[in-house]
Amino acid sequence: MDYQKRIAKLQEKLRRKKVDGLLVTKPENRRYLCGYRGGDHGINETSGMLLVPASGKVHLLTDFRFKLQAEQESPGAEVVIYKKGVLRLLGQLLPDLAVTSLAFESNYTLHSFADRMTTTLTKNGMKIVPTDGLVETMREIKDEEEISLIRSAVRLNEEVFAEIHSTLADFPTEIDIALAIETSMRRKGAERPSFDTIVASGKNGALPHAVPGSSPVEKDGSLTIDMGLILDGYCSDMTRNLVVGKPSKRYLELHRLVRKAQLAGIAAVRAGVRVCDADKAARDVIVDAGYGSYFGHSLGHGVGLAVHEEPRLSSRSNKKLKADMIVTVEPGIYIPGWGGIRLENMFVVREDGCENLNNDSTWLDI
Amino acid sequence: MDYQKRIAKLQEKLRRKKVDGLLVTKPENRRYLCGYRGGDHGINETSGMLLVPASGKVHLLTDFRFKLQAEQESPGAEVVIYKKGVLRLLGQLLPDLAVTSLAFESNYTLHSFADRMTTTLTKNGMKIVPTDGLVETMREIKDEEEISLIRSAVRLNEEVFAEIHSTLADFPTEIDIALAIETSMRRKGAERPSFDTIVASGKNGALPHAVPGSSPVEKDGSLTIDMGLILDGYCSDMTRNLVVGKPSKRYLELHRLVRKAQLAGIAAVRAGVRVCDADKAARDVIVDAGYGSYFGHSLGHGVGLAVHEEPRLSSRSNKKLKADMIVTVEPGIYIPGWGGIRLENMFVVREDGCENLNNDSTWLDI
Repeated sequence: MDYQKRIAKLQEKLRRKKVDGLLVTKPENRRYLCGYRGGDHGINETSGMLLVPASGKVHLLTDFRFKLQAEQESPGAEVVIYKKGVLRLLGQLLPDLAVTSLAFESNYTLHSFADRMTTTLTKNGMKIVPTDGLVETMREIKDEEEISLIRSAVRLNEEVFAEIHSTLADFPTEIDIALAIETSMRRKGAERPSFDTIVASGKNGALPHAVPGSSPVEKDGSLTIDMGLILDGYCSDMTRNLVVGKPSKRYLELHRLVRKAQLAGIAAVRAGVRVCDADKAARDVIVDAGYGSYFGHSLGHGVGLAVHEEPRLSSRSNKKLKADMIVTVEPGIYIPGWGGIRLENMFVVREDGCENLNNDSTWLDI
Repeated sequence: MDYQKRIAKLQEKLRRKKVDGLLVTKPENRRYLCGYRGGDHGINETSGMLLVPASGKVHLLTDFRFKLQAEQESPGAEVVIYKKGVLRLLGQLLPDLAVTSLAFESNYTLHSFADRMTTTLTKNGMKIVPTDGLVETMREIKDEEEISLIRSAVRLNEEVFAEIHSTLADFPTEIDIALAIETSMRRKGAERPSFDTIVASGKNGALPHAVPGSSPVEKDGSLTIDMGLILDGYCSDMTRNLVVGKPSKRYLELHRLVRKAQLAGIAAVRAGVRVCDADKAARDVIVDAGYGSYFGHSLGHGVGLAVHEEPRLSSRSNKKLKADMIVTVEPGIYIPGWGGIRLENMFVVREDGCENLNNDSTWLDI
């Protein structure tokens, strides 16, 4: 990855914003800018913060536990270890770097930390500036190398699905399927699942974010499998819906309806289109069939270093799609007491349409 | 779990603080207060917020995706669904509940959200009050039922370790061991690992938070396994250090030193003792042997619904231990270029000492 180029672009943005530096706290942003893979244990336990001055070398601030890893993974950054908290280190480091106004990531900084930072650093005349989306906006557009990595993550995800799909009858419960999927992902080289695998049988499918349980897979009922993995840092995300046994007439009807909505959404996705219009293209199909109130979520979302990132394909956003964004298209219908159907593929947005990263196998078109 | 009792206790605290309600955003706090297990996908994607008024019924605010789950798991809460964001819902709900001052959890609320909440809600004269640790302080002291659940989580963790330990020679790489551990955890009924399993062979052991890699397990070298699982919501956490092959003289010397430090720490843990003094008891052993600079982290931490929670057994805290807290005792020595040794058990703090939740098998005392 060309971290230098990314840093240079961000530094240009910082100079335009007239701030002397940005404290990068979001793990994906940190990795995007310097390659450091340190795993945060939630937002309260950071494995490091990246200090990007408006010009000059970036500094990766971390503690004892991550020193060796930080040095190995981020040779382009100056690794600095703090012993008595990152705020004390910043108090010493910022004057040395001539930073007198510091921006921070408002949407990945706790209120308590922002408060302490402001109290501690403004004492010496430092200006603290909340910002939003400086790095996320850069991450929306993928370069060739990123598209290639995501393509590999999608293919591996499909390979895992194909393996499990061929032996589905061997797994009695939802949790058995989820475990088999996640084990296979890691055996095949994935870092981990990109989110908790969803396996929802029968009525459970009415919960879009169902937690796999020990209930047996319903014969002849709908089965939703929503799965994704992380390979070399990049995510995949895919949902399949099928029936173990013989699908009912209603199942076939609804599956075909969701697929029709998905195809309408796909046909709408290209550079220049507003995300709300892409959402509407798919949603109209479901609304027209009388199931509008059963499709309660957005059409899709961006995928990259994070499995859910910008752009959101939401009816409430006027943002326009751009070439080399990567998004999911995933309409669904969820009927309490019956079950649910969602179909999800990933696409690269192109000037004249979009490229399907998944293989649309025939079993989709039942 | 007696959620009503917990809510009543929190409401009493709110009335003492003279606020009309608390918006609970931290997932563990939410679960502690109402039983809802909804999984957040990071702090940016909540599966719900719990609104606890200073008196009256609690409200669980969530979106379409989690409606059924919220209703099933939190029968004591009024489940309210928002379609256009939680802030708009709060703007409608708070006046109905006569809430004119709302506290929020400063250490689990993003700066951006706090900012928007303040802007939106103070328009109508609402007072917004940052708070810290209201629920966490309650969670520090475990009741009988919680201790029993944690005991089960510790036992299952040991069972998994024993299984893998007996077949360790079958696994060529760190990642093979980590995968076998996490698969076994889930086959035996754990919800998931409580953190990413650490398996660090040889020199990698010098990274306290090493990521398992595809490097082969070093024969005759140090092997650190730090593993934990979640069972019925409650966490376990345990570190073992061993050698596949024949331990060197240096390994034996250092292992015995860390064990000696651990025993000194354990002997210091009881109600009324300051956490810094417990840390010092163990640290002194390592400092006196000349390895002080190789033990860069705290002695331990609380464990409960979160794997890392209060109290922290830190040299920088004067907090006193109390009966029925559950903490780890885990000194370590990490030598760059050689490797590392850490030993970790979990303990219930008692008035007159502490109870070891782990089985100290003989292989610990080599």
